[in-house]
Amino acid sequence: MTFPNIVQDLIDYFERLPGVGPKTAQRLVFYLLSFPDEELKNFGGLISGLKERTCLCENCKNISEETFCSVCKDSSRVRNQILVVASPLDVVALEKTDYNGHYHVLHGLIDPLSYIGPEDIYIESLLKRIKELIRDEVVPVEIVLATNASMEGESTAHFIQDLLRERYDSDKIVITRIGRGLPVGGDIEYADDNTLSRALDGRKEI
Amino acid sequence: MTFPNIVQDLIDYFERLPGVGPKTAQRLVFYLLSFPDEELKNFGGLISGLKERTCLCENCKNISEETFCSVCKDSSRVRNQILVVASPLDVVALEKTDYNGHYHVLHGLIDPLSYIGPEDIYIESLLKRIKELIRDEVVPVEIVLATNASMEGESTAHFIQDLLRERYDSDKIVITRIGRGLPVGGDIEYADDNTLSRALDGRKEI
Repeated sequence: MTFPNIVQDLIDYFERLPGVGPKTAQRLVFYLLSFPDEELKNFGGLISGLKERTCLCENCKNISEETFCSVCKDSSRVRNQILVVASPLDVVALEKTDYNGHYHVLHGLIDPLSYIGPEDIYIESLLKRIKELIRDEVVPVEIVLATNASMEGESTAHFIQDLLRERYDSDKIVITRIGRGLPVGGDIEYADDNTLSRALDGRKEI
Repeated sequence: MTFPNIVQDLIDYFERLPGVGPKTAQRLVFYLLSFPDEELKNFGGLISGLKERTCLCENCKNISEETFCSVCKDSSRVRNQILVVASPLDVVALEKTDYNGHYHVLHGLIDPLSYIGPEDIYIESLLKRIKELIRDEVVPVEIVLATNASMEGESTAHFIQDLLRERYDSDKIVITRIGRGLPVGGDIEYADDNTLSRALDGRKEI
């Protein structure tokens, strides 16, 4: 017994999504069959048009519907603070805090094992932004490196840090890394030793 | 910070799928952004056309691309055996066994609390099929009731059983219910008492 072609093709597409196995893909497609035709047309139309109707913000490379994203267009935000992240989803998470500066989305991390070098992610455009800020004398520019605590995240942060230190004096540019330590609600007893070392290094006088 | 409209609309659609929460929906949509445009158009096109390009088999009501599904068109299958299930996914699971009869998909179960009565599922068309088989003297017809072991599954099975017993003599129709008991690999120690009672009732001489 095989599924009708269209059903099988759709199951194959759903299976390519992260966290969706064969059983889940089947369930999703059969669930879709219970949607009214009009809803399916809307849903399908949104997926078909996703790439056409979105672009990367020219400034910060976040997903946007216009040339510049809402954050970059907001003149009330701190202009000389750029938080560097790997993916647009990181921006979503950070926007829930009271951070009021700008972002720069790298769209990936340096990962030699997967053949992803510095030129494959948006580092060049970050340098261009910094150059412009320094030219406009909006200094010192703070670059907050907020990549994940993975090997790739750390090495990407180091790479950017070295690049900036080489080019600019410390009166023009301040480089910071987001804080590491125990998460809120985290137990010292169950924390791994790396996290604990970082938490000790990051201790603050109170 | 809000998502671009198309991204938010798409997240809303994904959230309506079973087992997909807000975080997963976001992750899926942002993952889709990494697909090439052509792939997105294919994927979207399949969803848009899902309803148009499929129908219910006129005979067994399974999902099909043609008037009759592949099972109903297969003349090598046992004609006077109809396995009654609630959903097309049940057919997929049962087709992995060596069952070689026909199916009838009810597309739901009788559930008065959700206002689903016998007339809302495909019971009428099952009766029509049985009538035709008896007219053609392909008797006795075996009706295997294979609805889930839930309250709705049991009461739907009982409803169909009563209906058939009223109309036909036992030389024309044989009604069976799929076996209940310990699943393969199941531990007696951990089985619930309902399953164990059913397993005892269903014991067989060896």
